[in-house]
Amino acid sequence: MYSITPISNQEVCVSIDCMGGDYPVEVPIGGANLVALQDKNVKFILHGDSLAIESYLDNHNALRLLSTVVHSDLRIDDDKKPSEVIRKAKGTSMYESIKSVKNGEADIIVSGGNTGVLMALSKIILTTVANIDRPALIGDMPTKSGRIIHVLDLGANVDSNSHMLCQFALMGHAYYTAISGLDNCRVALLNIGSEDTKGNDAIRNAATTIKSSCIGKNFIGFIEADKVLLDTVDIVVADGFAGNILLKSIEGTAEMIIRSIKTAMNSNLQTKIASLLLKKSLKKSLSIVNPSNYNGGMMIGLRGICLKSHGKSDALAFSNAVLKGIKLFRGGVNERMQKGLASFDLDSKCIDEL
Amino acid sequence: MYSITPISNQEVCVSIDCMGGDYPVEVPIGGANLVALQDKNVKFILHGDSLAIESYLDNHNALRLLSTVVHSDLRIDDDKKPSEVIRKAKGTSMYESIKSVKNGEADIIVSGGNTGVLMALSKIILTTVANIDRPALIGDMPTKSGRIIHVLDLGANVDSNSHMLCQFALMGHAYYTAISGLDNCRVALLNIGSEDTKGNDAIRNAATTIKSSCIGKNFIGFIEADKVLLDTVDIVVADGFAGNILLKSIEGTAEMIIRSIKTAMNSNLQTKIASLLLKKSLKKSLSIVNPSNYNGGMMIGLRGICLKSHGKSDALAFSNAVLKGIKLFRGGVNERMQKGLASFDLDSKCIDEL
Repeated sequence: MYSITPISNQEVCVSIDCMGGDYPVEVPIGGANLVALQDKNVKFILHGDSLAIESYLDNHNALRLLSTVVHSDLRIDDDKKPSEVIRKAKGTSMYESIKSVKNGEADIIVSGGNTGVLMALSKIILTTVANIDRPALIGDMPTKSGRIIHVLDLGANVDSNSHMLCQFALMGHAYYTAISGLDNCRVALLNIGSEDTKGNDAIRNAATTIKSSCIGKNFIGFIEADKVLLDTVDIVVADGFAGNILLKSIEGTAEMIIRSIKTAMNSNLQTKIASLLLKKSLKKSLSIVNPSNYNGGMMIGLRGICLKSHGKSDALAFSNAVLKGIKLFRGGVNERMQKGLASFDLDSKCIDEL
Repeated sequence: MYSITPISNQEVCVSIDCMGGDYPVEVPIGGANLVALQDKNVKFILHGDSLAIESYLDNHNALRLLSTVVHSDLRIDDDKKPSEVIRKAKGTSMYESIKSVKNGEADIIVSGGNTGVLMALSKIILTTVANIDRPALIGDMPTKSGRIIHVLDLGANVDSNSHMLCQFALMGHAYYTAISGLDNCRVALLNIGSEDTKGNDAIRNAATTIKSSCIGKNFIGFIEADKVLLDTVDIVVADGFAGNILLKSIEGTAEMIIRSIKTAMNSNLQTKIASLLLKKSLKKSLSIVNPSNYNGGMMIGLRGICLKSHGKSDALAFSNAVLKGIKLFRGGVNERMQKGLASFDLDSKCIDEL
């Protein structure tokens, strides 16, 4: 549901953290190059080990022509807690790539690095909008009809109390309204049952508060994990832990099933012939659930556009995160969202009831 | 991985809560009848509205011959919190069906009702073994190789602290050892990252305690949700909220993908021919992920065998829960587990570090 009209071909500069993710340099450069091949109005600032970056650029000419390389000596490791690295993050590729957006040199930052640190650093450097306490990671998920829904938080905030859940709901609502141009957003809270009594205190309190808030009419209650993909909601609100479990369970299951279908298709001559006949139709169906097509979560609630690419992404998936960021920038997502969020009196509507 | 040798055809009596689940009476009776058709050494005590039960039994003769009906006026609603109904649960079909096991009239109880209440009532009526504080729901999940792994807790305990997570790990280990006869159980904790620093305090503390406990050598660390089905572990330990999200996400995704494959296969004449050629091979592959085949979580840690059937189960899925309970009973799961658990000094090994 991305129907905002981008200012077509508007020039955009993307700051890339080339050292994040499971395949540093290789995947960010490969992904950015795929974008460079299809959109000449994009410039790139590539942050990271300049020697490694330059050596990859030798094989990625489209990107080389549109890029500036900025050397960083350091990277943020995946096994670090935000509290351990925040104070000494200056000089890392992640810090410097966010800084490029803060300084106005770039419009978007894309990183495949440590989610918790990306949340913390982007919050410190870019700061949050309106009265939002902490940014959240919002991502896309496919539904059975092929329509996209959005889920937040996907893992940026491991312990989310009821106040944070309410803010996630407000941000999700504003995001949906911004990107769709529609005023009919259906917001639901992820829970382990649909009845009012189910779940923990944080979730039940959040539900009560959201119901009586300015987006109360958009709140449809609790949703269970097996109903998320049924296309009955637009925004699913979850604490970061549960949201991350949801996302990765869906990815892992999709991967396993697709693999077993491929095995079944290759089991003998008869099934191989059948798979040739089915190929086109099946490819279309299965592309709906291909996680690569939905890569790139936006760190929502910031004064800047920050995209998190999945750590294990390949170049194609990374390029999808960059393209999503460009689309959101050209569509003016943050301007639209800030306008939406400013009209909510968050503090009075969503006091923490814990 | 159920390789325990059952005492073949041992007589067993199953107490059925006929009023639980989304389709009371119809599904429990239909499911029990499917079991009655294939195993004449099973007796049933059917708890619930006797008029409704009798009317269904008219069409389920196999079951009628093996059953006793015990009337209950009341049922536990799905929207009730355990704290709301525990004191007035006497006389409900769920309470009375558990009581049948406590009284020695039945060997197994199977219910599709409210999970939290089933946990609380079975804990009160049957009591827990060894030093276990609260029972947990352990269920089966398929892996890509077709092998089964076990996950607990699937939703019986909504807020699980580190002490409870440690107990879940010990129970999971004992369960696996009991049903497989093997001593090589691999236990992992569900988390949102694999690194030691990831997750919340409860999970990190639990990991530290499990590592230094009697099952430390079996503990392989954290596992992310997208790795659960990859067949690298035997027991996945999760707090009840996350475990439930994991289970239902997998079910919902499997359902959606299987449905889109069916649509793809029916899209035109060519794909219909292909699907005929593929049918046998694909059916085998997809049965691996069919949630119905894995229905029935055991409420583990009790002095009695209590099975929870999925609320939305059909009769076939319900029969699978009953059959699993019978298999566990005939294999002497609780005797084997209690022996295993008794050798652990839970209190000294797993103090709550929160």
